[in-house]
Amino acid sequence: MTDRKLQTYIQSLEKIDTSELYGKDFLLTWEKGAQELEAVFHTADILKIMHAGGIPAQIFKSGMAVSIFRDKSTRTRFSFAGAANLLGLQVQDLDEEKSQIAHGETVRETAVMISFLTEVIGIRDDMFIGEGNRYMREVAAAVEDAYNQGILHRRPSLVNLQCDLDHPTQSMADLLHLRHFEGSPEKLAGKKVAMSWAYSPSYGKPLSVPQGIITLFTRYGMDVVLAHPPGYNLLEDTLRTAEKHADLSGGSFRVTTNMKDAFEDADIVYPKSWAPFSVMEKRTELLGAGDKDGLKKLETRCLEENRRYIDWHCDDDLMALTKGGKALYMHCLPADISGVSCQQGEVSSSVFEKYRNQTYLEAGNKPFIIAAMMLLSKVKDPAAVLSDLVKKAL
Amino acid sequence: MTDRKLQTYIQSLEKIDTSELYGKDFLLTWEKGAQELEAVFHTADILKIMHAGGIPAQIFKSGMAVSIFRDKSTRTRFSFAGAANLLGLQVQDLDEEKSQIAHGETVRETAVMISFLTEVIGIRDDMFIGEGNRYMREVAAAVEDAYNQGILHRRPSLVNLQCDLDHPTQSMADLLHLRHFEGSPEKLAGKKVAMSWAYSPSYGKPLSVPQGIITLFTRYGMDVVLAHPPGYNLLEDTLRTAEKHADLSGGSFRVTTNMKDAFEDADIVYPKSWAPFSVMEKRTELLGAGDKDGLKKLETRCLEENRRYIDWHCDDDLMALTKGGKALYMHCLPADISGVSCQQGEVSSSVFEKYRNQTYLEAGNKPFIIAAMMLLSKVKDPAAVLSDLVKKAL
Amino acid sequence: MTDRKLQTYIQSLEKIDTSELYGKDFLLTWEKGAQELEAVFHTADILKIMHAGGIPAQIFKSGMAVSIFRDKSTRTRFSFAGAANLLGLQVQDLDEEKSQIAHGETVRETAVMISFLTEVIGIRDDMFIGEGNRYMREVAAAVEDAYNQGILHRRPSLVNLQCDLDHPTQSMADLLHLRHFEGSPEKLAGKKVAMSWAYSPSYGKPLSVPQGIITLFTRYGMDVVLAHPPGYNLLEDTLRTAEKHADLSGGSFRVTTNMKDAFEDADIVYPKSWAPFSVMEKRTELLGAGDKDGLKKLETRCLEENRRYIDWHCDDDLMALTKGGKALYMHCLPADISGVSCQQGEVSSSVFEKYRNQTYLEAGNKPFIIAAMMLLSKVKDPAAVLSDLVKKAL
Repeated sequence: MTDRKLQTYIQSLEKIDTSELYGKDFLLTWEKGAQELEAVFHTADILKIMHAGGIPAQIFKSGMAVSIFRDKSTRTRFSFAGAANLLGLQVQDLDEEKSQIAHGETVRETAVMISFLTEVIGIRDDMFIGEGNRYMREVAAAVEDAYNQGILHRRPSLVNLQCDLDHPTQSMADLLHLRHFEGSPEKLAGKKVAMSWAYSPSYGKPLSVPQGIITLFTRYGMDVVLAHPPGYNLLEDTLRTAEKHADLSGGSFRVTTNMKDAFEDADIVYPKSWAPFSVMEKRTELLGAGDKDGLKKLETRCLEENRRYIDWHCDDDLMALTKGGKALYMHCLPADISGVSCQQGEVSSSVFEKYRNQTYLEAGNKPFIIAAMMLLSKVKDPAAVLSDLVKKAL
Repeated sequence: MTDRKLQTYIQSLEKIDTSELYGKDFLLTWEKGAQELEAVFHTADILKIMHAGGIPAQIFKSGMAVSIFRDKSTRTRFSFAGAANLLGLQVQDLDEEKSQIAHGETVRETAVMISFLTEVIGIRDDMFIGEGNRYMREVAAAVEDAYNQGILHRRPSLVNLQCDLDHPTQSMADLLHLRHFEGSPEKLAGKKVAMSWAYSPSYGKPLSVPQGIITLFTRYGMDVVLAHPPGYNLLEDTLRTAEKHADLSGGSFRVTTNMKDAFEDADIVYPKSWAPFSVMEKRTELLGAGDKDGLKKLETRCLEENRRYIDWHCDDDLMALTKGGKALYMHCLPADISGVSCQQGEVSSSVFEKYRNQTYLEAGNKPFIIAAMMLLSKVKDPAAVLSDLVKKAL
Repeated sequence: MTDRKLQTYIQSLEKIDTSELYGKDFLLTWEKGAQELEAVFHTADILKIMHAGGIPAQIFKSGMAVSIFRDKSTRTRFSFAGAANLLGLQVQDLDEEKSQIAHGETVRETAVMISFLTEVIGIRDDMFIGEGNRYMREVAAAVEDAYNQGILHRRPSLVNLQCDLDHPTQSMADLLHLRHFEGSPEKLAGKKVAMSWAYSPSYGKPLSVPQGIITLFTRYGMDVVLAHPPGYNLLEDTLRTAEKHADLSGGSFRVTTNMKDAFEDADIVYPKSWAPFSVMEKRTELLGAGDKDGLKKLETRCLEENRRYIDWHCDDDLMALTKGGKALYMHCLPADISGVSCQQGEVSSSVFEKYRNQTYLEAGNKPFIIAAMMLLSKVKDPAAVLSDLVKKAL
């Protein structure tokens, strides 16, 4: 059974040209072609079935997977560690004292110093607009150059574990969940998705999740509606990308400031808080200047601003507006659940409770998506390598 | 030689029914039957001999062993890490900011999020009366449910690395030491054990070690005397359990407020500090309320209370009262050694010095006890698996 | 190609008697004979070629490599982790709260408690004059004794990752770099090396790098000139050792207070800041006494003292004085680069830029030097073991 399923998946993977992933970084989904994404989804599914069946997937005998978290993280840290371990790599954390903006020689040097025996680098840096992705590219350029100069034996590949622009391991784990939930990838076209802002008493949540969702989901013919209060807009570039993707895929993309409008007849809803764009920009500026008082004031102002939209709350009434009252609720977790993890938050406990297992299943894709990205960047012929592993085990 | 010894041990293990350990957590020794404990002791011995002989014991190709320490720890951390590594698992620490009481969705969700690629979870949570063990059961329920829902491929098993009720990896490491020290398990019956409170200038040591000792040692026909000053009583339930065990095993259990009474004619002495029960209860309450001033005052009061019993000190005079003046001194380490690690503590340097190597040997059992608990919870036929590993190596 | 090169190296290693490294610690280069150092260089080269060629070097199936850092570290931490991983060991960090001076039972006990499943211990403790190396020897004595008493199955070997006296993994990585840079070990004799103090706005850098360089480089017939301002002298013993080594090798060693004098006609320059000896001594005293105010004042005084020598700066003018204006610039990294990592530091950006890749290559030796030290302390017949690994892979 496992064997048959695996053979089918591996045969499909065999038909996909993965050469554009080999030796490359995975930084933004919109830099990758449709077949590259397809290869990631397939490989993640294969690795998941292998893990469920107890089939070892260690393509490495040794080597390190370095993680750089410039922001606290439990989930992503464990997903990355699990993925690395699955493939035979040893995680080594580079713990930076605190979130900081560093460039130039410091970044270049550190990047090389941590890479002598390193196969993969995972970076999470989502706190500053205009910084996270730029930092990743500096690290990538440094290891690329060091490899070309003969300083590094191998060129570690980067996986974006969340930046200011995109959160590819999250959005792809989400989409993989949808593919399974709907039964097949083909069934996604025509589905209405409400990617909506929701109220949260917390402050400064990054924009990368909604940006990741609107840019990725629009590629699959879905009708994506982005809803948020005035001032909570996303980065202009990601809106343009979502529009372009919708055009190309036969889907649609539009923005509304009305949560109900977005939920109406939706097949999928993704209500989630994020910070106002202007706050994120201001914060980057204040942090750069080390202005602690300014940051404190900004936080107060932001929380007050949030409170104006406390009714952006995913409850049973809102869910009743969705297609048959039965839209799939999605979330990247942890959700701010009213009366559970906070007084008033993004979602009512009644709604969350109904979909809790679905959100857990959704999250369960992430280690395998990360492992797939790692594997495809380090292995020239993934179908053959995976096929060998399966044969050896069965 | 190694080969012969191993064969004997493995043959003995083969005769033990380990089905009640397979797929189960190890939370409290008194929830386990005699043969389950026997299986752990045997497996620990086998793994120890294998390690001494350089025989690999990696039953896992990959997978994570998650450790959750809600209290500082060096020894237990290294024991857990060593055990995981011995079996082929990768340790991943879940570091919580500080000791905290968390329940409900937060615990459930975190438990699942850290478990997608996890085989074993080790938890140390011993700071709050009524909390540590309860927290472990919440984690266990969460992963059990997630496994049943198909969210987790495997159900990670839990190992209690110390809670408010029991410290099973310690008490079993201690008992294993006694088995070896006395020459055979049969020789334990009739031995007098003094589990005694002793003075320490430190504050708030958990009750789980003495509770673990009195509940476990009474199962083997020993005469266990618990000695402590008024007010330093243990949890009522554990006293009842010790009494019941003594009745069943033909041993005895009694409580005294006289340290000399306990030491008189004792074969084994275990002098160790712990906090007064009422202080632990009060602390749980104050911590829950976040009352920092109250906690400060409680600490002062507790240290003053301790000082009244500064003469509860294991010195040569006290040791002279034991059987032939030669009782075995035991300790879970680190001991508060007078004139060495503190001015005046639990034990004189003269006594400690004599037994130092014995306490080190005692501690050396712990990684193997933990590894045994892990292995028996994940392997259906441990004798066959271990036998295969030995055959492959020799 | 890889095959041929490896065979040559392994054949050379085969001829070296490595028995004095087996089962021993690596604490100071000047305690090791010429052939022991040669064995480390050879083994490092072999491991490096194997890694470049993707040949697994895992001599261990399991086991831990414990790292004890009593000072912050990224580079050395990653080098140690990489080395351990390369050989199949699992790193486990013993993180101490802060730099501290501990002796006696505490050190002995901790040393044993972390060693039950440990093959190698790496220690960095460079903050206190008279302490770091002494601490390592206490740890070594503790594990030696515990092994002899049958408490430990194996005797973990220690690697000095930097102490108050020496920084052997650095100086040997540096020398290995020179061997490759010059084309062969024989070409080092007669080369002039300027090991020079240089200005830095930071405080309290250890003396172990310059001490390591002058004691090691003088063994290879080089003409080593140590330059520093008055008061920045090194430990007397290391100066005596450098003199003795120079005498024996046909090289020379002298001290100057003139940076230009040192650079004049030099083949190699190593400009690097360190703290004045008297400051390091005073600091040890103040830290021991817990005198925070005194420490603060000492820092201020030290930085002021440093500033008097702000012209000790490695710039193009100074480099022009070297042999053909083309001396090799070396540094242990991170360098304080003027206008880049600080306003005014050890080296101009123009000089650093020219040699950046060389310093990276230099640093790239370190994980392999550490791995070589580990391997040679744990393997009786390294040539045979490495040869087997290569045969299995090719």
